[in-house]
Amino acid sequence: LNDDNEESTYDLVEPLHPADIADLFELLEREDRRELAAAITDLMSSEVVAELNDYVREDMLEDLPPEAVAEIVGQLDTDDAVQLIEDLDEGDQRAILAEVEAEDRAVIETALAYPEETAGRLMQRELIAVPDSMTVGDLIDYLRSEENLTTEFWEVFVVDHRFHPLGTCQLSWILRTPRSVKITDVMKRDQTLIPVGMDQEEVALRFQKYALISAAVVDENGRLVGQLTVDDIVHIISEEAGEDALLMSGAGEGDINEPLRDAYSARVRWLVANLGTAVVASAIIAWFGAAIEQLVALAVLMPIVASIGGNAGTQTMAVTVRAIAMNQLTKSNTRRLVLRELKVALMNGATIAVLIGLATAAIFTPQLGGVIAAAMVINIIVSGMAGVLVPVAFERLDQDPAVASSVFVTMITDSMGFFAFLGLAVASGLVSM
Amino acid sequence: LNDDNEESTYDLVEPLHPADIADLFELLEREDRRELAAAITDLMSSEVVAELNDYVREDMLEDLPPEAVAEIVGQLDTDDAVQLIEDLDEGDQRAILAEVEAEDRAVIETALAYPEETAGRLMQRELIAVPDSMTVGDLIDYLRSEENLTTEFWEVFVVDHRFHPLGTCQLSWILRTPRSVKITDVMKRDQTLIPVGMDQEEVALRFQKYALISAAVVDENGRLVGQLTVDDIVHIISEEAGEDALLMSGAGEGDINEPLRDAYSARVRWLVANLGTAVVASAIIAWFGAAIEQLVALAVLMPIVASIGGNAGTQTMAVTVRAIAMNQLTKSNTRRLVLRELKVALMNGATIAVLIGLATAAIFTPQLGGVIAAAMVINIIVSGMAGVLVPVAFERLDQDPAVASSVFVTMITDSMGFFAFLGLAVASGLVSM
Repeated sequence: LNDDNEESTYDLVEPLHPADIADLFELLEREDRRELAAAITDLMSSEVVAELNDYVREDMLEDLPPEAVAEIVGQLDTDDAVQLIEDLDEGDQRAILAEVEAEDRAVIETALAYPEETAGRLMQRELIAVPDSMTVGDLIDYLRSEENLTTEFWEVFVVDHRFHPLGTCQLSWILRTPRSVKITDVMKRDQTLIPVGMDQEEVALRFQKYALISAAVVDENGRLVGQLTVDDIVHIISEEAGEDALLMSGAGEGDINEPLRDAYSARVRWLVANLGTAVVASAIIAWFGAAIEQLVALAVLMPIVASIGGNAGTQTMAVTVRAIAMNQLTKSNTRRLVLRELKVALMNGATIAVLIGLATAAIFTPQLGGVIAAAMVINIIVSGMAGVLVPVAFERLDQDPAVASSVFVTMITDSMGFFAFLGLAVASGLVSM
Repeated sequence: LNDDNEESTYDLVEPLHPADIADLFELLEREDRRELAAAITDLMSSEVVAELNDYVREDMLEDLPPEAVAEIVGQLDTDDAVQLIEDLDEGDQRAILAEVEAEDRAVIETALAYPEETAGRLMQRELIAVPDSMTVGDLIDYLRSEENLTTEFWEVFVVDHRFHPLGTCQLSWILRTPRSVKITDVMKRDQTLIPVGMDQEEVALRFQKYALISAAVVDENGRLVGQLTVDDIVHIISEEAGEDALLMSGAGEGDINEPLRDAYSARVRWLVANLGTAVVASAIIAWFGAAIEQLVALAVLMPIVASIGGNAGTQTMAVTVRAIAMNQLTKSNTRRLVLRELKVALMNGATIAVLIGLATAAIFTPQLGGVIAAAMVINIIVSGMAGVLVPVAFERLDQDPAVASSVFVTMITDSMGFFAFLGLAVASGLVSM
């Protein structure tokens, strides 16, 4: 690419899978992306565009006229087309949709009418649905003779005359059954139906839990309106599972292709919030200012108590947030988890207290060793309880526990670390206030 | 269950999906699990056992005689059977395998011979493979007439006479094609082959990237030895994506069903490591002891610098670890990420520095405000660089960046926070050492 040798670039890229070509674009700098696109125009299939990272795609689509984008949209499956269009601003959406064929446009507009991140947005409207009167032979003949059916399906849905799902047939069952058998004798009646308004996180959990390959999506009246297939869901499973680490750290979406401005505004918000909690902790230290003047060792040791407490709180919080995300934590076992974390905190607290207490006694005084050991036990227990109870409280208030818990847990562990240590130093008569 | 009413318990549980029955067990206390199992013996299918959390399953299997476990093993797909057996200790494994039918035993032992967390352990050995000479009609006849074939397949693999994969056919393509067409004209030649020794994390990434439903597993000689289906992979995708938050916090596996002792030993290790890093930070404070005695405001403000730096470092680290886990970070774009994070750190640092600088100037003195503002900019930039470079370094040393980075990043952000702030206070002549 550097040598302006378009032909050899083309030859190198030609054998790649669309997902690999998309990756290649993501690795390049912005200007190089344009050059690469120019060198491999006819390899820039709609699949490549669909596989691109949201930010990179938006960036590249901005350079294209609406007609060119509309052409890409027309080639995509409806779910990919919707994903491409939903990220653009409304003006661009309208300009592109005006160029798309009427039939596709209607489908895309219907999908866009569903709220973001719901099954309605994600689903494909193309699916195979057949009446319950068919035999296996009828079904195979129908699939062979109808030209306009999708070829991307893993199950056949059996419906009644009002298009309500009655059952579902894996294709392998159909292929292993003689032609004369009725479809209703092959199909499975129990199936996981996805309501069109279900949140994508819940959809991902259902696919995972019931090991689904595809599933029928139904509207409010129970009519079959689309299907979801697992290849579209794995991205969501991975995103939803991976985003908690980013959210807990306060890094927003944390995508390395996110524009600088978005990354800044997502992160600085949490740093400012953390500044607030740090000021609270500082106020506690200031309150004990006279005590620190008498014994500067207190200033030296106090960050240790706060830091270990913070780590213990983060551990418990990570465990709790994950359990909530996996739907493992319900009212009936929250009490059990609290008890369990209390026990772990006691064990951790005792271990760390002995280590830091002995070291402090040896370097400073035995009394200071006792104070820091007691403060450590208190702070690790308080941190452990905060690590469970803060995310559980946010969950009950219908807030995402991964987003909001960190700031509160940090405030509690820092403040309590300083308060317990400095307060015990005063209470034990080591220093006065 | 509490009223000892086994019949009504049975009626309640009967309509549930095996995955839901497994969830029910996980919600119960240990003793209640046994009672429930006794009440619904004939609903305790092998599927329920396969769906149980590893720890809960181990706990329940311990109570059963080897013959009973062997019976469950016999009913499971090979991949589920292997998953059940691999967690048990070697003595139990031998006792159970002795009771399993010879044919199943051979299959399970072959799978156990592959290293843990590789494709060889995860794969199903049951699959449909056909020679390239077949037509679509021949294939359908074969599938209908052979009794002993699996019914769980989503693709048919086409192989040569040495059992090397030549191509793959989605079942939907077969169903939409006339009987007379040759299978080689329907199949796709480009397919993603999974080497039997591939790590499960890599397998999960391939499934995600190429949107696979199933894939052929090949041995060292390129022979087809098994298949992987996405329903077995979604658990791994979710686990691998979700574990980074747990690993970064130092909470080990972080499963709420993990035995207390395991949770303690996983977590206390990181707390002790963190104690070490906190002591390093304390040593820096102790070095400036005389300065703090002159101006106790330094002790009050110094945790703010460290805390915000820690948060900024964690944000960058979370973003970097995620990018590494998703294979988005390569040698060619690491430089770009470092530059990007430097810019974000500058913007964040400037914002926070202005806020804390003005507040400190107002409450304490303008000079102290200048010192804390400058220390904040320095620490946020250092933290941002540490947040990128530490995980990247661990990745290059073939260490899991999620596991080891936290301790180092925290040490750098804490120590640099105290050093920059106290050092600048001395350098500016505010205090002397």
